[in-house]
Amino acid sequence: MGVTIKDVAKKAGVSIATVSMVVNDKAGHITPKTKRKVLDAIKELDYRPNFTARSLVRKASNTIGLLVPDITNPYFAELAKSLETALNQAGYITFLCNTFEESEREKRYVNELISRAVDGLIICGLTSLETTIFASLKERRIPYLILDNRFSAENFSIHADDFAGGELAAKHLIENGHTKTLFVGSQNHYINIEQRYQGFKSIMDKHKLETNYLDTELTRVGGQKIAETVFKMDITAVFCSNDLIAIGLYDAAAKQKLTIPGDLSIIGYDNITFTSIVKPHLTTIQQPIHMLAEKACYHLLQMIHTPDYFFYKEILPVSLVSRDSVAAQ
Amino acid sequence: MGVTIKDVAKKAGVSIATVSMVVNDKAGHITPKTKRKVLDAIKELDYRPNFTARSLVRKASNTIGLLVPDITNPYFAELAKSLETALNQAGYITFLCNTFEESEREKRYVNELISRAVDGLIICGLTSLETTIFASLKERRIPYLILDNRFSAENFSIHADDFAGGELAAKHLIENGHTKTLFVGSQNHYINIEQRYQGFKSIMDKHKLETNYLDTELTRVGGQKIAETVFKMDITAVFCSNDLIAIGLYDAAAKQKLTIPGDLSIIGYDNITFTSIVKPHLTTIQQPIHMLAEKACYHLLQMIHTPDYFFYKEILPVSLVSRDSVAAQ
Repeated sequence: MGVTIKDVAKKAGVSIATVSMVVNDKAGHITPKTKRKVLDAIKELDYRPNFTARSLVRKASNTIGLLVPDITNPYFAELAKSLETALNQAGYITFLCNTFEESEREKRYVNELISRAVDGLIICGLTSLETTIFASLKERRIPYLILDNRFSAENFSIHADDFAGGELAAKHLIENGHTKTLFVGSQNHYINIEQRYQGFKSIMDKHKLETNYLDTELTRVGGQKIAETVFKMDITAVFCSNDLIAIGLYDAAAKQKLTIPGDLSIIGYDNITFTSIVKPHLTTIQQPIHMLAEKACYHLLQMIHTPDYFFYKEILPVSLVSRDSVAAQ
Repeated sequence: MGVTIKDVAKKAGVSIATVSMVVNDKAGHITPKTKRKVLDAIKELDYRPNFTARSLVRKASNTIGLLVPDITNPYFAELAKSLETALNQAGYITFLCNTFEESEREKRYVNELISRAVDGLIICGLTSLETTIFASLKERRIPYLILDNRFSAENFSIHADDFAGGELAAKHLIENGHTKTLFVGSQNHYINIEQRYQGFKSIMDKHKLETNYLDTELTRVGGQKIAETVFKMDITAVFCSNDLIAIGLYDAAAKQKLTIPGDLSIIGYDNITFTSIVKPHLTTIQQPIHMLAEKACYHLLQMIHTPDYFFYKEILPVSLVSRDSVAAQ
């Protein structure tokens, strides 16, 4: 016999209702600590919640909805292409929806995709913290997973190790003698970008170094907009939360005859294809795009085909790609 | 009373059946000259074919399907974003479908979009010359238009003036003293790219200059792949049919310590955002992305809302963006 919800409750030392709430992401009144205990018990016992009803209600349409925040960011274009390739091999076609980081549009897309009977959804970079989106998906028993960006209350998520990415960037700067640094984050407070900052800061803290913080749009224009402020700061290095912002700083530096990395060292994030075109080639944190896509495809198909399939989250490794945009101090 | 099909036939000096065939794109047995006469008569008389039945059959779903060949090409990412913005303002959401230049996938997407009751389709860069796709859209009276790439037999198309783009590139090279040139086209024989070549060649012909021709993939890798061949040719300048190919040549040139434009002048096509990042900044032909998107949105909405709406094609202007990748000989 399989493991039951009772076993999990016993192991975690909580009530069955609590386990149920965690599994169904209705964790509003549960402390992170309790949640952690439940998730650990689920993992240890290899408990698989019974979602059977899910597969009984719907017919297969062989289509998947994919929400991305900005398709003109080459990172999301590459990710979308990888996902589409993987899903196509599995016999699915993908409707790609560009949400422009607008929660209103995210909601409309999800509703439209639901009414068009998609078999599943992959949601990247959702800005809306409203759980109504997830609630209506659950109600209709449409499998979905959160890719790249995520919310702490969500099961079924896949992302790269953003905290480790921030640590790698900080270590690289410290190894190169930088003590006055800046982190550039996003105006939309994505959790993955917050994690990059936390990782970065944790290493700086260890070395008793302060670090500055700025927000901007996650675009090339976003980088150009903050350049003036950045160039006036008493810093020697910037860690940008994506490559496009770094490229925007390159643009502004060229205009002001500042040299990179002579006047300012820069690290990006994502390793989009154009990081090896800019001069100097941009040092950056590589996200495992193909692995993210493969894992997402694998788990989503399991969720579609196996009624009781459950996974908590997958965290994939990142790496530093050292090129020419960081100078030794 | 409005103009009738009889008036058009009389004006063009052809039968009513011939006019009907042109209007319904069943122009298989009609010579281009006859077709031209019919289209001129339609325009002169402002004739509007009666497509009333179209709007009676279907309910509005407020969704549009958009097919693009490669979302990782920043040109198509920008175009998709512009289209989505324009359509969203008009109250529509867009399902973006990435066809990877595979005709099998194009057909699947169109069928899926049909079965999901989209109100209209915008089709970019279709590789499939099979008219079955268009036939099934017509049968179901789903309005669609061809954007960017197109087929000579199609009405309802919008594209930039590719022939003029080719001419501009050729004139620019000749003005800079280049007599030994190369055109790089696509392995998939898109008509728009063929037109760029024809425009380029027409100017070279006028100056009694020969030009070389090569095909490759329309990607950065496509440029890298042909680089060795290109660098061995007895030429001083290359006109690439898109910017990504040009960037691929930049990559290979850097590896082989060739300088651009010292050793080789290069012109791209599209003016994607990264042309102003590469060093030297890439001289290229600018496509009017926002205008293409606005026109496409305008016409498609007319087609959806006005049963008898008809337009033949719109050709939008291109321009040369002269930067640093062409040297005077």
